[in-house]
Amino acid sequence: MKILLVGASGVLGTAIAAELGARHDIIRAGRTGDVRIDIRDPASIRATFEEVGTCDAVVSAAGKVKFAPLVEMTAEDYAIGIADKLMGQVNLVLIGKDFVSEGGSFTLTTGVLAHDPIRKGTSASMVNGAVDSFVKAASIELPRGQRINAVSPGVLLESMGGYAPFFRGHEPVPAARAALAFSKSVEGALTGQVFSVL
Amino acid sequence: MKILLVGASGVLGTAIAAELGARHDIIRAGRTGDVRIDIRDPASIRATFEEVGTCDAVVSAAGKVKFAPLVEMTAEDYAIGIADKLMGQVNLVLIGKDFVSEGGSFTLTTGVLAHDPIRKGTSASMVNGAVDSFVKAASIELPRGQRINAVSPGVLLESMGGYAPFFRGHEPVPAARAALAFSKSVEGALTGQVFSVL
Repeated sequence: MKILLVGASGVLGTAIAAELGARHDIIRAGRTGDVRIDIRDPASIRATFEEVGTCDAVVSAAGKVKFAPLVEMTAEDYAIGIADKLMGQVNLVLIGKDFVSEGGSFTLTTGVLAHDPIRKGTSASMVNGAVDSFVKAASIELPRGQRINAVSPGVLLESMGGYAPFFRGHEPVPAARAALAFSKSVEGALTGQVFSVL
Repeated sequence: MKILLVGASGVLGTAIAAELGARHDIIRAGRTGDVRIDIRDPASIRATFEEVGTCDAVVSAAGKVKFAPLVEMTAEDYAIGIADKLMGQVNLVLIGKDFVSEGGSFTLTTGVLAHDPIRKGTSASMVNGAVDSFVKAASIELPRGQRINAVSPGVLLESMGGYAPFFRGHEPVPAARAALAFSKSVEGALTGQVFSVL
């Protein structure tokens, strides 16, 4: 398969590239990589697909949100996550559906905070909940047999250096374990699922 | 209790006013009503709270989203629901927390499409999923013992005239039944819950 991997240089993206790269042709996209992409900008997404051409799978391991106490959060702070992790990933689907082959797939990244929140994480929770429900809804309307799933990992083991104080009591997930769920989505046959990796 | 009811003139808002108005002082806000409010505009939300003053509960039965086939939806179409039903309700909390009394509550409206999608409903699903997760996350950070819940009704019986073709097989919920869940949120003690009314 020809797989466009967005956010390829991150902790999760690197693990996904290792897992899927053993069997497939991976095009690494991000701020660095084979192709540059800024998922906040629909024009950048379209330019990436026009450069890459038809793909069999689009995998997104991208998406930023702002972490801050609720009492300090403003509408502008929520807009960061809405433009990036939420609409960035939704726009990958809206634009990408015209470039993904018949029966191809989209796999987005969400996370455990959708249903197991932490302090300072209201934007992450909100965006993850939105991605979870978008994937379920989009799966019944995608054209040409295309599939869509999301992977919802717990806090990544490799990120615990900085994140541990915020995720006390959460069991860290090695990125390589989370990457398996991306393989299940891309190489399996399910659609409309949120694969939880805890 | 003094309760600010946003979206008071809609089908759901009317039922909530009937349920809670029997025991409490309801201030009806919306495009009509006791006070005008446009939840898409944070300045309008702030002006409403400054006019109304301290409340014991804020109840939102407001929020628009665009319904259209996924293959026709654009980022601008999703922005309608994000600005209105999602960030409109989030901004009611962000701004309202300074006007709601100690131990007071917020109750937002979400809906069944978060987990039981229909064709043309990807924006509604996405926004409802976001509201569900925001409520869970915000509940652990609200100041001064404030509570927050959401009510997630199925399609309203009173709306089936226009909605029936989109909701085949869904069991309609009388607005008066959905209104009971708002009473449970406002007059009960739970927080961080999504009350499903199906």
